[in-house]
Amino acid sequence: MSQTTPSATDLEHLAAAVAAARKGRSEGGIPIGAALVVDGEILATGSNQRVQLGSAIRHGETDCLENAGRLPARVYAKATMVTTLSPCDMCTGAILLYKIPRVIVGENRTFRGAEDLLRSRGVEVIVVDDPACVQMMTDFIDEEPELWNEDIGV
Amino acid sequence: MSQTTPSATDLEHLAAAVAAARKGRSEGGIPIGAALVVDGEILATGSNQRVQLGSAIRHGETDCLENAGRLPARVYAKATMVTTLSPCDMCTGAILLYKIPRVIVGENRTFRGAEDLLRSRGVEVIVVDDPACVQMMTDFIDEEPELWNEDIGV
Repeated sequence: MSQTTPSATDLEHLAAAVAAARKGRSEGGIPIGAALVVDGEILATGSNQRVQLGSAIRHGETDCLENAGRLPARVYAKATMVTTLSPCDMCTGAILLYKIPRVIVGENRTFRGAEDLLRSRGVEVIVVDDPACVQMMTDFIDEEPELWNEDIGV
Repeated sequence: MSQTTPSATDLEHLAAAVAAARKGRSEGGIPIGAALVVDGEILATGSNQRVQLGSAIRHGETDCLENAGRLPARVYAKATMVTTLSPCDMCTGAILLYKIPRVIVGENRTFRGAEDLLRSRGVEVIVVDDPACVQMMTDFIDEEPELWNEDIGV
């Protein structure tokens, strides 16, 4: 049976993703972070780099994948992607490309990405609904609505 | 009525994507290229950077989006993504994120990506079935099957 609640370890990993998001915000960036976990260890973290690098493709999850570097399929096959926010279409596609089987989502109240597509392709998606993640995004969207819209193609 | 065949201008833009792909191959990389076209002009080109930059996220289309830089939604809304190869899940997701309404695909014989998902979300997808694109990928896959598998998460 599929797990539907995060483990204590998942929450530790989410804390690392939140830390990456907060660091990104302290740099003037968009506070979305991620961690790629393999065999219980964090292989890489990442955060949205739209402001810092002028990037259109480095969202939290994709920056994390880039920081993890080139990996063989067998590593992705046992990975968990931990992200502070529900994955957008692009990040969902990256997870599907690499057949990452498990995704931990901090929250999906401020933005709901393609969780249904992930599930329809067999990915286990666990939404933590973490109040700290919600607050971080709510504050950011209040402060910089135009930057946020740019990031999600609105 | 939706157009189903590429225009002469589309084929010119595809030639630019092919040139980017060939340049990538000459650098030791994977020969997949793309061009982002807005108002009939090529805004940026890109090519797969797995080898050159050790990148897990810079496919032809995403490298092209990165090279185009930060753009407002209204620019993507009138763009065409031209790519030498059928877009993988990640690149499909990037096209959907930015609501790019039109995609020209060089070929989908050597790899078939998420064209159905694009169409289901209202994106116009035109497959050129260009013999030069097919040959370029066939040669590459013959030469470097492991590198190709890594790129598509196999």
